[in-house]
Amino acid sequence: MAQSRISILGTGLIGSSVGLALAARPNRQYDIVGADRDRSNARTAKKLGAIDREVGSLEESVSGAGLVIIATPVMAARHILQEIGPYLTAGAVVTDVCSTKADIMRWAEEYLPDTVSFVGGHPMAGKEQSGPAAAVADLFKNATWAITPSPKADERAVGVVLGLVEALGATPLYIDPAEHDQYAAAVSHLPLVMSVALFRLVRDSHGWEDASLLAGSGFKDLTRLASGDPTMSRDIMMTNREAVLHWINRLQTELGTIADALKLGHEPTYDLFQSTQFDREHFLLNPPLRRRPDGPEAPSAQDAFGRLFVGGLYDKLKETTNKFGAAPSRVNDAELKRKLGVRDDDL
Amino acid sequence: MAQSRISILGTGLIGSSVGLALAARPNRQYDIVGADRDRSNARTAKKLGAIDREVGSLEESVSGAGLVIIATPVMAARHILQEIGPYLTAGAVVTDVCSTKADIMRWAEEYLPDTVSFVGGHPMAGKEQSGPAAAVADLFKNATWAITPSPKADERAVGVVLGLVEALGATPLYIDPAEHDQYAAAVSHLPLVMSVALFRLVRDSHGWEDASLLAGSGFKDLTRLASGDPTMSRDIMMTNREAVLHWINRLQTELGTIADALKLGHEPTYDLFQSTQFDREHFLLNPPLRRRPDGPEAPSAQDAFGRLFVGGLYDKLKETTNKFGAAPSRVNDAELKRKLGVRDDDL
Repeated sequence: MAQSRISILGTGLIGSSVGLALAARPNRQYDIVGADRDRSNARTAKKLGAIDREVGSLEESVSGAGLVIIATPVMAARHILQEIGPYLTAGAVVTDVCSTKADIMRWAEEYLPDTVSFVGGHPMAGKEQSGPAAAVADLFKNATWAITPSPKADERAVGVVLGLVEALGATPLYIDPAEHDQYAAAVSHLPLVMSVALFRLVRDSHGWEDASLLAGSGFKDLTRLASGDPTMSRDIMMTNREAVLHWINRLQTELGTIADALKLGHEPTYDLFQSTQFDREHFLLNPPLRRRPDGPEAPSAQDAFGRLFVGGLYDKLKETTNKFGAAPSRVNDAELKRKLGVRDDDL
Repeated sequence: MAQSRISILGTGLIGSSVGLALAARPNRQYDIVGADRDRSNARTAKKLGAIDREVGSLEESVSGAGLVIIATPVMAARHILQEIGPYLTAGAVVTDVCSTKADIMRWAEEYLPDTVSFVGGHPMAGKEQSGPAAAVADLFKNATWAITPSPKADERAVGVVLGLVEALGATPLYIDPAEHDQYAAAVSHLPLVMSVALFRLVRDSHGWEDASLLAGSGFKDLTRLASGDPTMSRDIMMTNREAVLHWINRLQTELGTIADALKLGHEPTYDLFQSTQFDREHFLLNPPLRRRPDGPEAPSAQDAFGRLFVGGLYDKLKETTNKFGAAPSRVNDAELKRKLGVRDDDL
């Protein structure tokens, strides 16, 4: 029975969305316990069916759980990792959904007992709203879910987290924690900074009252991330500061390059927008492939909870699952050029 | 009969969406003629029911039309304004949907005969895709539609365009063309530049193949505008260059300010994200009000096509319709603070 309890620590948007998806699985043989520093969050999660039971302490929450999912901002996760050690059941699998991975992996290594396995995780999905009321069971459908197993995590533990990810409809991606943080800085944390910059800039400008009347879907989309939970944002920045600063700097330079093109006139400006449109369409039509493990080592896709995932650890997993360079292009460039009305000598 | 013909010049996303909405109106007493430099666009628009008839020349398209809607990129609109003069029916109303307004207004003044009225327009709505196949009848529903009547436009002409805007479900906003371009640079053209900058920066980076695997909804949303039609983008930049360069420069500075906060540490970083979240939620919950004209001068909301809109010209309209400063806040700050869990001394 102990092995069939799942504990969710932090019942905000992500934790409650995980709970809703897990709770909805047919014939499930686990119960879901949830805790939140803000107990009204946990009560809402319970009311919405994201957890079966709400408890008030970390001890009560993780005791007897076979899988513990930490779904808080990064700094709160550190605190949890420091506290839960004594209460964890031997053999438990601990994972997280935090936005940065290097610090988390180090803390797990430092604070967790050797009797449990830690496998880091990060779903590349989210919403403008935060809190359990915004949770939806299909939040992770088709999203990439980065997985960073600790070097000490056993294969069974990796299999459990892989099973969790697949149960939520996401696609697992094995990645080194430091690499994860570098890339996430570019595709996730920099966009967050940009959203905040755009909103503040226009909001604080002299013409805001008039300008805001003209704000349409473009402005709303580009500033969406600025509505995110500020604690989560702060923790992302504080645990990935150097990488984010690096990308902010590069963005400032890129903006200068674009300004130069505008100053040069019609042709360079057109080339800039045309080549960018072309590359983005190519990206959308030919998304990078995340191939699942195949062959006899692949887990049964049905329900990997508690099953043994037969495979190696990080390097081996990465090697066998993340190949995408060799995949054939599904929309070739000539086709895309025709679609966009681009002449051959334009790009 | 002549007065009941509407001509759409340019049957891309915007022109065809206007056409679809106009074609769908019950008991309509006008026919819709469309033309496009790319005739396959116009044929698609015809097939989709956005226009009743496709014609191959500007002359044929505007002859006998009571309302001419120019729905092309800005530079193409200039060419059209230069050409259509001789073929326009006396009393015709000419409008446009272009992204910048100052140049258009000058060209209309310069090229159009005194026998017609020009009323500029710009719907603050769009989509990632371009072309008639992406058109939808409700594209403008609840969007702001900027209206810039030329000083010479008569009241009837303003009423016709107001009727058009209301028929499409949008909310009209009278605005001075130069002001429009300044504000649009901030809330529309700068976001476009940012989308392009983010996509290019990450796409051209060494780690793109790996980083793109982690690109989730945040990256896709923030780079959405980079998929826009490059001709439209170029024309926006070329007709509003100084304002866009000004905002790019301010954005670079704002990014530096944010970088400084990150370097200062936890507290300044938290304050930055928290105050921005607060201001954005306030903006979303209390959108700036665009009051419609009220009192005896208001047009019947039913169908203003061809009716006389009794009201003044730009200044008077602006005075009576754009008041929003005095409106009561619908969600007060204390309420929002509670919702976001902000303590009184935090902001």
